[in-house]
Amino acid sequence: MIQRFLENPILKPSMITPSSAGMAVECTLNPGAFEFNGQTWLLVRVAERPVPVEGKTTVSIFDDKGALKILSFDNADPDLNLSDARAVSYRGTAYLSTLSHLRLLCSDDGVHFHEPKPSRSLTGMGSLETYGIEDCRVALIEGRYYLTFTAVSENGVGVGMISTRDWQTFKRHGMMLPPHNKDCALFEEKVNDKFWCLHRPSSPELGGNYIWLASSPDLDHWGNHVCIARTRPDMWDSGRIGAGCSPIKTEKGWLIIYHGATNKNRYCLGAMLLDLDDPTRVIARSKSPIMEPAETYETKGFFGEVIFTNGHVVHGDEITMYYGAADEVICGAKISIQAVLTHLASGG
Amino acid sequence: MIQRFLENPILKPSMITPSSAGMAVECTLNPGAFEFNGQTWLLVRVAERPVPVEGKTTVSIFDDKGALKILSFDNADPDLNLSDARAVSYRGTAYLSTLSHLRLLCSDDGVHFHEPKPSRSLTGMGSLETYGIEDCRVALIEGRYYLTFTAVSENGVGVGMISTRDWQTFKRHGMMLPPHNKDCALFEEKVNDKFWCLHRPSSPELGGNYIWLASSPDLDHWGNHVCIARTRPDMWDSGRIGAGCSPIKTEKGWLIIYHGATNKNRYCLGAMLLDLDDPTRVIARSKSPIMEPAETYETKGFFGEVIFTNGHVVHGDEITMYYGAADEVICGAKISIQAVLTHLASGG
Repeated sequence: MIQRFLENPILKPSMITPSSAGMAVECTLNPGAFEFNGQTWLLVRVAERPVPVEGKTTVSIFDDKGALKILSFDNADPDLNLSDARAVSYRGTAYLSTLSHLRLLCSDDGVHFHEPKPSRSLTGMGSLETYGIEDCRVALIEGRYYLTFTAVSENGVGVGMISTRDWQTFKRHGMMLPPHNKDCALFEEKVNDKFWCLHRPSSPELGGNYIWLASSPDLDHWGNHVCIARTRPDMWDSGRIGAGCSPIKTEKGWLIIYHGATNKNRYCLGAMLLDLDDPTRVIARSKSPIMEPAETYETKGFFGEVIFTNGHVVHGDEITMYYGAADEVICGAKISIQAVLTHLASGG
Repeated sequence: MIQRFLENPILKPSMITPSSAGMAVECTLNPGAFEFNGQTWLLVRVAERPVPVEGKTTVSIFDDKGALKILSFDNADPDLNLSDARAVSYRGTAYLSTLSHLRLLCSDDGVHFHEPKPSRSLTGMGSLETYGIEDCRVALIEGRYYLTFTAVSENGVGVGMISTRDWQTFKRHGMMLPPHNKDCALFEEKVNDKFWCLHRPSSPELGGNYIWLASSPDLDHWGNHVCIARTRPDMWDSGRIGAGCSPIKTEKGWLIIYHGATNKNRYCLGAMLLDLDDPTRVIARSKSPIMEPAETYETKGFFGEVIFTNGHVVHGDEITMYYGAADEVICGAKISIQAVLTHLASGG
């Protein structure tokens, strides 16, 4: 059902130029994918951290205009708190240890990717993206590309949207789904005269990390939220689930590739099938994963035992899926749609 | 600035008939308020629990059609888990110890309220409201009443909407804001040709319990979410904040009454002023509360040290505010708009 690229990993941090002299690329991961001008493109999440300076703790943020700003704290400063490994806290404000932006790469064969010259990036901008933008899905709807991504700031973690027709000029649509939300995948065509998206709110108390569906008249405003899939106790998707890229229209229904993780953060991929005319209706769902971390580049790395996809291109029966492995490198795999449908029809 | 009703509390659990024979009213709290047909009405949150049965643990939920269903578990059943006082857990599903619905009460003088005959309620309905509906705001927009309330289920806690013109027939709009969200207050008129609301998402990690603003073309679909107010360390609103009822239009700006709680869950009320033409701009905010728990009915009860408002009616300079006290009884108070504006102008 799944054929990994022999060339994996196809992208790793050493292949990417840092965004500025003071920064180092820590991880390249979770790319959006699309086709444009006869080429395959990835919109890669590049996670950077400031180059270490002796005696200092440095973090980076985006300012209001999208420019990267490095903050430096003296390690002897009593207001600095380093007790949490994932964050740096200074005078009550928590900063992330890495900052992500989105970098465009292109390819003629869908396997070997390079940065265009000059390099092209999308960065966090404004008060809702100071801590970066991450894990971008790209959907092509009525001739326009819609980018839905995780917008991170001290205000919370929500879903931001940017659109473009030509990848030169971009329209910022603001935050389309408020905190805490991630993993937003747009359907690429209207169903029942409405736009649709999958999303993944998270709850501090009742509820969990479940997949929800919403609809919209205009892609900017969303309503009629319904929960369509929950985590399943004692299964491979017991801890959290979230949609991959846009649902794929098949004769059997809308095919969704999704990630599921256990409470121990082992991330696998599974599939779901939604009714073509009523996407709130789940027809089938993988009992077992369609893909699990197996290769060394998936089991070892910045965060091992993780495969996470939010980008694919589709031709006929073939999905070319791009995915982040071990939260550090980018890989590719081919998937047969018919094989996934057979897996689902046979009970998953 | 604040004059409590001498008659407080104006409603308490003993004054309300249980919704069915097997239920007991535990709390009456957090009413929405509106005027209709020359009377003042409250839409009271009634929290009930099943009448205790010896040797059993009982909980109640709403089924798909909005009917109340009592579940009974044998105390000797090893699958029953009572280790958490707020919830009853059975085979991995957590149930709340009380179930809330919304009850209509009316009054000729705005102080003495009674139930119409026959009694009229709104209950939870469908998979997103099985654990009840709570804390309803009522906004009158273009001749139609819009009810925004907390919809609770095992899927999460979000904002549901129902509308009515005559309080006889109701339209259910589904979930307008996905989990985790509460405290949604609609503006009662358009600003810049859009509808607006305040809402309060909560985050399991980055972010907090902050007040956000969103806009809509049609009241059903919401976008362009922005964070307008955060909790303030070491102040009376350090733990969580949330809007009360609809913003009140004044010559100085949109006046908002909001609740703020400390991390120890002491709930006070404060005020905020938003720019008339650009409600994303906060002009002023209370440094000190405009109202704190002080009377015995506010400091002692089901959950002491709590005053919480989500309903008011306005005539000229006078806000008649209804509020839940100690999460158990309902009270009223009169507030002078000019006095609140003076408090804000003088630095709050």
